[in-house]
Amino acid sequence: MSAFDELFAFQRQTEALSSVSERLGWDQETVMPRGATEQRAEEMAAMESVLHERRTDPRIGEWLDQAVPEDAEDARILELIARDHQRATRVPARLATELARQTSLAQGIWAEARAKDAPADFLPVLNDILMLKREEAAALADGGDLYDALLDDYEPGATQAQIAALFDAMRPRLVALRENVLGAEFQPAPLSGHFPQETQLRLARACATAYGYDWTRGRMDLAVHPFSSGRWQDSRITTRVVETDPFNCIYSTIHEVGHSSYELGIDSDYAFTPLGRGVSMGAHESQSRIYENQIGRGRAFTGWLYRRMADAFGGLSVADADAFYATANRVTPGYIRTEADEVQYNLHVMLRFDLERDLIAGRLDTDDLIEAWNARFLKDFGIAVDRPANGVLQDVHWAVGLFGYFPTYALGNVYAGCLNAALREAVPDLDRFLEQGDATPAVEWLRENMQRHGGLYPPRKLIEQATGAPISELPLLDYLDDKFATIYRF
Amino acid sequence: MSAFDELFAFQRQTEALSSVSERLGWDQETVMPRGATEQRAEEMAAMESVLHERRTDPRIGEWLDQAVPEDAEDARILELIARDHQRATRVPARLATELARQTSLAQGIWAEARAKDAPADFLPVLNDILMLKREEAAALADGGDLYDALLDDYEPGATQAQIAALFDAMRPRLVALRENVLGAEFQPAPLSGHFPQETQLRLARACATAYGYDWTRGRMDLAVHPFSSGRWQDSRITTRVVETDPFNCIYSTIHEVGHSSYELGIDSDYAFTPLGRGVSMGAHESQSRIYENQIGRGRAFTGWLYRRMADAFGGLSVADADAFYATANRVTPGYIRTEADEVQYNLHVMLRFDLERDLIAGRLDTDDLIEAWNARFLKDFGIAVDRPANGVLQDVHWAVGLFGYFPTYALGNVYAGCLNAALREAVPDLDRFLEQGDATPAVEWLRENMQRHGGLYPPRKLIEQATGAPISELPLLDYLDDKFATIYRF
Repeated sequence: MSAFDELFAFQRQTEALSSVSERLGWDQETVMPRGATEQRAEEMAAMESVLHERRTDPRIGEWLDQAVPEDAEDARILELIARDHQRATRVPARLATELARQTSLAQGIWAEARAKDAPADFLPVLNDILMLKREEAAALADGGDLYDALLDDYEPGATQAQIAALFDAMRPRLVALRENVLGAEFQPAPLSGHFPQETQLRLARACATAYGYDWTRGRMDLAVHPFSSGRWQDSRITTRVVETDPFNCIYSTIHEVGHSSYELGIDSDYAFTPLGRGVSMGAHESQSRIYENQIGRGRAFTGWLYRRMADAFGGLSVADADAFYATANRVTPGYIRTEADEVQYNLHVMLRFDLERDLIAGRLDTDDLIEAWNARFLKDFGIAVDRPANGVLQDVHWAVGLFGYFPTYALGNVYAGCLNAALREAVPDLDRFLEQGDATPAVEWLRENMQRHGGLYPPRKLIEQATGAPISELPLLDYLDDKFATIYRF
Repeated sequence: MSAFDELFAFQRQTEALSSVSERLGWDQETVMPRGATEQRAEEMAAMESVLHERRTDPRIGEWLDQAVPEDAEDARILELIARDHQRATRVPARLATELARQTSLAQGIWAEARAKDAPADFLPVLNDILMLKREEAAALADGGDLYDALLDDYEPGATQAQIAALFDAMRPRLVALRENVLGAEFQPAPLSGHFPQETQLRLARACATAYGYDWTRGRMDLAVHPFSSGRWQDSRITTRVVETDPFNCIYSTIHEVGHSSYELGIDSDYAFTPLGRGVSMGAHESQSRIYENQIGRGRAFTGWLYRRMADAFGGLSVADADAFYATANRVTPGYIRTEADEVQYNLHVMLRFDLERDLIAGRLDTDDLIEAWNARFLKDFGIAVDRPANGVLQDVHWAVGLFGYFPTYALGNVYAGCLNAALREAVPDLDRFLEQGDATPAVEWLRENMQRHGGLYPPRKLIEQATGAPISELPLLDYLDDKFATIYRF
């Protein structure tokens, strides 16, 4: 066997084990008995230890030195393996194992603390995780910027300086739009009524099907914080149900369908290789966001959804499809990022981006986090956080060690803006299909121009190739201005 | 660290990984999307490869040479690790990986072949697995008997000669009882009616609760072939529903609760060690069987069950609790082992035991298996198999490589007979509790006298200690004669 073949076979098994580990995570958040938390932490730690040993295996260095790629795909595989190997060798095994163990335990503690609205139960654990993450960042950064080192895990090549500049460019127009919208005379009514769980889940399934979600390679379950999980032949979505607000379930579902379909849309030849997964979290979020917002909350698709929902629930509290469209895009003051509308969502992200940069840099202690969060929230959103579950406890990310992840949500929105502009030009009659509840022409364009490539191109290059234009925040901001000026009639 | 501590830490991680692998198997049979079969096979193979590498790690031999046990528990841990290490080193890695891959694939093929009643789709795959198992048996036997080498995986210390002798002693009395029962003038009526799935599942949950099943460390799902899975803090059961026959669901559930509660009943100090699991399949089956039959199908517990079922389904087609008891223990000619009554069950096992001994010895080809099965079935049960799904395709065992497993079901019945005699003597007023739907006094006796010990004692010693008497088939046969003579009035 050539060095390339040996490395390839070894990597194949590593990919399979990493997929197993991800499946365990899914199990923990959907079906695991609640008494199994400690056991699962030990299992995750054992998997992490095996994976770490493989990623740092000295043979990888030798194989990489000798391997001769035959084409661009092979070359990119080697590049991605080398990158992963370098990052893994920089993190000591003890630290990697400890992080896996602590974050697995912390997840349960976070969920309970959130349910009981008891941040004191969680913040000491978060502090332990923060210390470990700073240690990890220092090991990865190798003298460079700590936050950039973490960010690189989720958005390879991005830097906090670059993102801060992008956010600075976006913020004034978003703030202005928010003020125009909240100050507008016309304000859409919310949906009122009781929307039974089973009916919501049936509708959510119908929406997933409208986007061509492949049920033979996926499934849908309930989770506290919806997520998608898995790749290749097995990518699952989760959702949640609030019986007073059917949009929560429906748009969570469509969002996760976007993530999951990206994985399922990757060229099947790339399975069990580093090309066989979405290339970055920003790229991933671009899919979930364009599925959810530019497509799912557009006038055309909501026209279909209005008829389906009115049928399913036996009538709705809004007068017609236009009113429904406004309601589905209603902008109101709110605490929760995952429930935020398109106008305010990126402001939620910016808050977290700044706080976590401060935490990682050591400029902010977890002891002061609640105060810092609440002060910033008041400043950015003009309302005071009423309880920690609506503030610092709302997201699972930090509990599971995801620092540097949040900004990729906003990057995803920017990418989605770019993709949507290109998609609309390429498929001018898209709305005709969306009006009939068929989003597959959009999905096919995205699969062909982006999803199928998996990890083949770096994120910015991937998006720029797909859209034929440089990345810019303008398509997103223009889209938002147009859409909300129409809905809010200003 | 001492050699013992190093070995112990290493083993702890191996146990965690093995538990992950078992959880993957659960996932595959309950929730996995059907399109993920090939991926799962690759994942299972990767896990098996890691586990095999660990079990054959040469350091284990060195640690074992140097480790000094401090007490009987440590000594037994070393003994079990040494046994596992020896068995693992005898099987080449290539063979272990191939077996894992093939059996994972075969499971899906078997399920489809059974559904379509198409044995030709499955038998070539079974033949591949048989060849691999014979190769494995030869490696394990090291010149000894092939079948015994496989059997030793499931019932350490047992031999086919010993089991054949036991079965020969049992067969005449079972055959005579079967003839008396089927020839009796009184024949209980079956339950007739339609029994909705949701109500059955609710009752099944109530039954599990009646046995003190710990829902914080378990859960219940549907599966084609019910099984239980997992240990320590996470042991799950599965069941199935036939809407014309509620006993199927209820007694499958109670059976799996027996298996699962055995694992959950083991001293929690033994978690992540080789003591932390049921010591043999026979010991396991003794728990599932005594839960299901001696307790669950007794007059006392069925009295409670009758009232619960009559309430849940709004009346039943039988006149009273006595008639219900007879119906719950109804003996009829039938094809399916898992649906067989206590009288005929062991005869189903004996058929498989003899066929698989012939397959492993090379005296029988898979090409001739259907004919051999059908001929033997006609001889033992007096009826012709009508279709392969009711014959050779009914069990998953061979598809997943379980040769040498079947006889442990009958051994379990024999052990259950012994345990029941001792239990009834130790808890003379047990029926008073069972009449109220409370099986926990029986469960507590079993946990205290048997379950908690996990792998500490070899199977026969464990049962003999618990019962204070040598293993014998007589308590089981006497119990069956008494019970069925009463029900069938001869």
